[in-house]
Amino acid sequence: MTIEERLGELGVELPDFGGPSYYGATYGKMKPYHRVGNILFLSGHVPDADDSGNIIHPGALGDQVTLEQGYEAARITGINCLAGLKQAVGDLDNVVAIVRTLNFVVCVPGFADVHKVSSGLTDLLAEVFGPERGIGCRATIGVTALARNNCFETWLTAEVR
Amino acid sequence: MTIEERLGELGVELPDFGGPSYYGATYGKMKPYHRVGNILFLSGHVPDADDSGNIIHPGALGDQVTLEQGYEAARITGINCLAGLKQAVGDLDNVVAIVRTLNFVVCVPGFADVHKVSSGLTDLLAEVFGPERGIGCRATIGVTALARNNCFETWLTAEVR
Amino acid sequence: MTIEERLGELGVELPDFGGPSYYGATYGKMKPYHRVGNILFLSGHVPDADDSGNIIHPGALGDQVTLEQGYEAARITGINCLAGLKQAVGDLDNVVAIVRTLNFVVCVPGFADVHKVSSGLTDLLAEVFGPERGIGCRATIGVTALARNNCFETWLTAEVR
Repeated sequence: MTIEERLGELGVELPDFGGPSYYGATYGKMKPYHRVGNILFLSGHVPDADDSGNIIHPGALGDQVTLEQGYEAARITGINCLAGLKQAVGDLDNVVAIVRTLNFVVCVPGFADVHKVSSGLTDLLAEVFGPERGIGCRATIGVTALARNNCFETWLTAEVR
Repeated sequence: MTIEERLGELGVELPDFGGPSYYGATYGKMKPYHRVGNILFLSGHVPDADDSGNIIHPGALGDQVTLEQGYEAARITGINCLAGLKQAVGDLDNVVAIVRTLNFVVCVPGFADVHKVSSGLTDLLAEVFGPERGIGCRATIGVTALARNNCFETWLTAEVR
Repeated sequence: MTIEERLGELGVELPDFGGPSYYGATYGKMKPYHRVGNILFLSGHVPDADDSGNIIHPGALGDQVTLEQGYEAARITGINCLAGLKQAVGDLDNVVAIVRTLNFVVCVPGFADVHKVSSGLTDLLAEVFGPERGIGCRATIGVTALARNNCFETWLTAEVR
């Protein structure tokens, strides 16, 4: 089964980042990805906004954002990463492995469940690519704030062919 | 002198991460390391828990955790990294150099000594591998929270053969 | 036009990091850079201190530090990165591309403009190297504290020849 077929099976639809629809540049001067040899580096990905332009689940875990909402924000971020990977390598089957994600969760002091939020992202990657290719290295940190009140961001590195 | 002999001289005993004892997976879907060419990427490492299952020096620098305790938490994290490196490359003498560590210190606002905490990790790596191989690039940031109230975490990249 | 000529045109003067003048080691055991193949990894860079030894724009965005000051701190950090790149590859024309920067902004909770601070760094890199080489991937996170009350830090990766 190809990754595209697997996405269809999971009911995951990817945004198209071709041309102006990659949202990163609206946050400042940046490009979506850079490849050196077999290593692909992505820009930070966030849940960003829904169709009405409202940031999805804005704010801090332990305050306005519940664990369930944070998990969902991380999963949506994962979908954006898949779109970013596809933009970079054309066919998602060219992704050999997720190398590592560094995950940022906006939260109040003392919030000890940041890792449970990130699982929204890493569970999705494991579902889509399977455990061998889809489970990467990982770290998660609780932060004070993210651009435009996004509650989650990830910084992903992949091995590609 | 091999690195294993050097560890014996320093009295540093490494946990064995083979099989189920790598603690990372208890925090969520992740693998301990990924290698692309000569670059080895590790998952986040933390002090984690003592033998009784209690997180070592939980909380925030500038509040419950003293600078001395934070330094010790970072040193213990370094020991976990050594075990992670050994798991990845079999023999620690296959570590050519520490490339870079990104270090996270849970702290209160205004705590200006985050770098002194990280030194617990980087001093250990320099002791074990010697300055040429053991002193890597480094950055340290103060964060709001980490998984399970760990007060320190590092994200390490190494060059290996 | 060489990058050095471009720096002259922009009126940007680089500090010389040869020998003891690289400031990083005063924060703890670290080296300024490490290269593996064509990938160059830098240590964290900060605005650091002015000639009188005072940290430039210390404190937190949303509190003591204005957006304009934060932008300037990020720009000064960019100048330090250029000096660090030059130290590593001799001639800045050996920089093929900025791969990625991870940017840290000390801020109060709810500060939603962290990305506007980072632009001080990324705008400079784009000016100096031009958009093709100078615009890299990027992420920015709001943090609790940085060493010595610096308000900004970046962690840069470059592709070099």
